[in-house]
Amino acid sequence: MRFLSFRHQHRETYGAVQHDRIVDLGHQFGTLAPDLKRLIEFDLLGEAAAYASTATDTLGFDDVALLPVIPNPGKILCVGLNYGEHVRESGRELTEQPTIFVRVADSQLAHGESIVRPRESLKLDYEGEIALVIGKGGRRIREDDAYDHIAGYACYNDASVRDWQLATSQWTAGKNFWRTGSFGPWMVTRDAIADDHVMTLTTRLNGEVLQHSTTDKLIHSVPRLIAHVSTFTPLAPGDVIVTGTPGGVGSRRTPPVWMQPGDCVEVEVDAIGVLRNTIVAE
Amino acid sequence: MRFLSFRHQHRETYGAVQHDRIVDLGHQFGTLAPDLKRLIEFDLLGEAAAYASTATDTLGFDDVALLPVIPNPGKILCVGLNYGEHVRESGRELTEQPTIFVRVADSQLAHGESIVRPRESLKLDYEGEIALVIGKGGRRIREDDAYDHIAGYACYNDASVRDWQLATSQWTAGKNFWRTGSFGPWMVTRDAIADDHVMTLTTRLNGEVLQHSTTDKLIHSVPRLIAHVSTFTPLAPGDVIVTGTPGGVGSRRTPPVWMQPGDCVEVEVDAIGVLRNTIVAE
Repeated sequence: MRFLSFRHQHRETYGAVQHDRIVDLGHQFGTLAPDLKRLIEFDLLGEAAAYASTATDTLGFDDVALLPVIPNPGKILCVGLNYGEHVRESGRELTEQPTIFVRVADSQLAHGESIVRPRESLKLDYEGEIALVIGKGGRRIREDDAYDHIAGYACYNDASVRDWQLATSQWTAGKNFWRTGSFGPWMVTRDAIADDHVMTLTTRLNGEVLQHSTTDKLIHSVPRLIAHVSTFTPLAPGDVIVTGTPGGVGSRRTPPVWMQPGDCVEVEVDAIGVLRNTIVAE
Repeated sequence: MRFLSFRHQHRETYGAVQHDRIVDLGHQFGTLAPDLKRLIEFDLLGEAAAYASTATDTLGFDDVALLPVIPNPGKILCVGLNYGEHVRESGRELTEQPTIFVRVADSQLAHGESIVRPRESLKLDYEGEIALVIGKGGRRIREDDAYDHIAGYACYNDASVRDWQLATSQWTAGKNFWRTGSFGPWMVTRDAIADDHVMTLTTRLNGEVLQHSTTDKLIHSVPRLIAHVSTFTPLAPGDVIVTGTPGGVGSRRTPPVWMQPGDCVEVEVDAIGVLRNTIVAE
């Protein structure tokens, strides 16, 4: 089942996708769970899916404005340098531990919204990625148990302002400009994708394929990432782990490719869908 | 006026300090503002201070368990390498932009609680710092206006698990172990400390002074930090900026000094007070 967050008639709510239509789950579950994060926390995804599969009152995608899949995650932990090709193009060394940085919630935007190129830079780059949404929380989760803690998967574009990212040793600024982290269009629940399924990730800019890889090439696997981050920080329902980008980012091309106002960038994951955004200059 | 967050009889609330006693503001303001962050957001600090100054029903510090000053900040932006002596002892270069990393809220703890040395490391280090609590939100705040956006100041111990901090290029893991960032004991409101007051910061481990500096030595000043971070991310009431640690951290001493279970660490800022924690091994 696919779950998403959206705004409808000035109301923020969430729903499930059924036959390419949206079932507004806020009507049925909103009193108990005011947002998708709480629906996950209260372990109601199964019940909500059952409800959605028989619901007849639906909305079209044109009737709503999507929100980031989880608009209000407690933490967004992003993984850097997790595909060999990207490590090499970045001129970095492999490390035993995964490289983790943090996004704040209001750096995010939704499918269909515009990624904002800030006034301060022309160096806006794409990074197609796969995001995990945590279902069951925990600390020091074992790799063998890790998949049991996943609520679902979404596409992510960890768009980066490269000059600000690399102005100091810590990437925070360039990874946290307002409206640069696109998260959508929906979360596909774990039960819909076999744990050992190799997902294919493709990033296109104006239709041209610029990144293309598969999750068997992840240096630090999904279970390893969950085990690692939960070693230092307790994971909670709705937390997001963004698993890293493959080779082919714009900044490492010759000549470099920067996203321009009016461009259309797509992150497609075969088992999830297509996350599409245009670029706008502030 | 000093404001703080605390637990009293299993209830999380917040208050003001008056004659070394605590006025529980939750009784009077809690319906409107369920926590200190919301009290700030709704611009009620002045009204709450007026109420507290005449209140007669008070609690002793022994009656309550303090919480981090703001238990639930929207974002905690920490500054690295902001005193020359610490830049030099760390073997780093000066950068034009401040170095920013992120803490997540549940890495925090309160005055009087124990900083937790995790099972994974013996290399737990102190970092005495001054935290700013944002009052009025904003984006691209001008340096000239920056002080108008400060609700108040608190002590911070940005305790760091050094081997995990330096295992990759990004410091996230070593800066976000559960219960390592101590934030307290209270927030002193901006009106109580002149904007041009040079604060003195001292860190003591078991009574021995190991860090001692003054805020006129900050490489990136308080207004500059607010202007910088609000360039990329919108600041909101209750957001926290932790301004950096002076020279003298344990990991750069010969021999290195690591905090041990049973140790007592204090961060004192003359205009604020003393933040005290013991160390416990997990």
